[in-house]
Amino acid sequence: MISIINTRRSVRKFTSDTVPEGDIREILEAAMNAPSAMNEQAWQFIVLSGAVLDQFLAINRNTPKGAPIGILVCGDRRTSRDDYYVQDCSAATQNILLAVHAKGLGSVWTTVFPDARKPVAQLLQLPDHVVPFSFTPIGLPATVPNAKSRYDGGKIHYNKW
Amino acid sequence: MISIINTRRSVRKFTSDTVPEGDIREILEAAMNAPSAMNEQAWQFIVLSGAVLDQFLAINRNTPKGAPIGILVCGDRRTSRDDYYVQDCSAATQNILLAVHAKGLGSVWTTVFPDARKPVAQLLQLPDHVVPFSFTPIGLPATVPNAKSRYDGGKIHYNKW
Repeated sequence: MISIINTRRSVRKFTSDTVPEGDIREILEAAMNAPSAMNEQAWQFIVLSGAVLDQFLAINRNTPKGAPIGILVCGDRRTSRDDYYVQDCSAATQNILLAVHAKGLGSVWTTVFPDARKPVAQLLQLPDHVVPFSFTPIGLPATVPNAKSRYDGGKIHYNKW
Repeated sequence: MISIINTRRSVRKFTSDTVPEGDIREILEAAMNAPSAMNEQAWQFIVLSGAVLDQFLAINRNTPKGAPIGILVCGDRRTSRDDYYVQDCSAATQNILLAVHAKGLGSVWTTVFPDARKPVAQLLQLPDHVVPFSFTPIGLPATVPNAKSRYDGGKIHYNKW
């Protein structure tokens, strides 16, 4: 398990192979088993594929193209205390990345920047309380990234700075 | 691996057993292998134990007592673009929780709320650019929480709301 955490790296090039529906379901279950502030679970998930995925990628240009499917993680302001949905959705996104890697698939955490939120919300007919947060394209990796550990002892401190 | 994600739950009661130093090192390595916005790795880690841990817990009252050790994840404003350290530190915190669970230990994600940040920074002599973010107490679970899946099909949408 810890080796899955340590060897997960951003994948930005994908083969054209489809991703089994059952894998997406398992990945979404992992996402929803993330912790959340006061267990508010302030997340919603939009699975994008086909023409809608293409339209999304034309808006959210920092997401690499080429994956057959992906998950848009959205914050739910109805159930979120203040902006804690950012932390809930981050934990869920990290679980998505790890579950993807555990299944031999690849992904990368891409942000929906503030200026893309409104056009994305319009495209997907999101209600006002649902905020597009991150998008993880999912596919078979076309290349396997180097997974050198990022451990840095200089960032560890004991009982004081 | 996915079962580790799905069975991780918040642990708030701990035995008095110590946690091996090697486990803490492995957990910190998992934390640092989280993804971060533009690979900025805007995190710092303060390992708290003994008298300093007690003093921290007297300030950060939402953290349960009883664990022999814990990790304070801090954002590093020097390396963070805007407030993206929140996402970096959330991903690192989630990796900590998963690595802890994988090792048979227990933890819970507790927040350092804004009003506790200054006294915590003073206690630990943190420089101004280092923001206390989350604290994860780590110990052997005294009780094993129920791990019913939080999967909710009502939160999954396909290509539109």
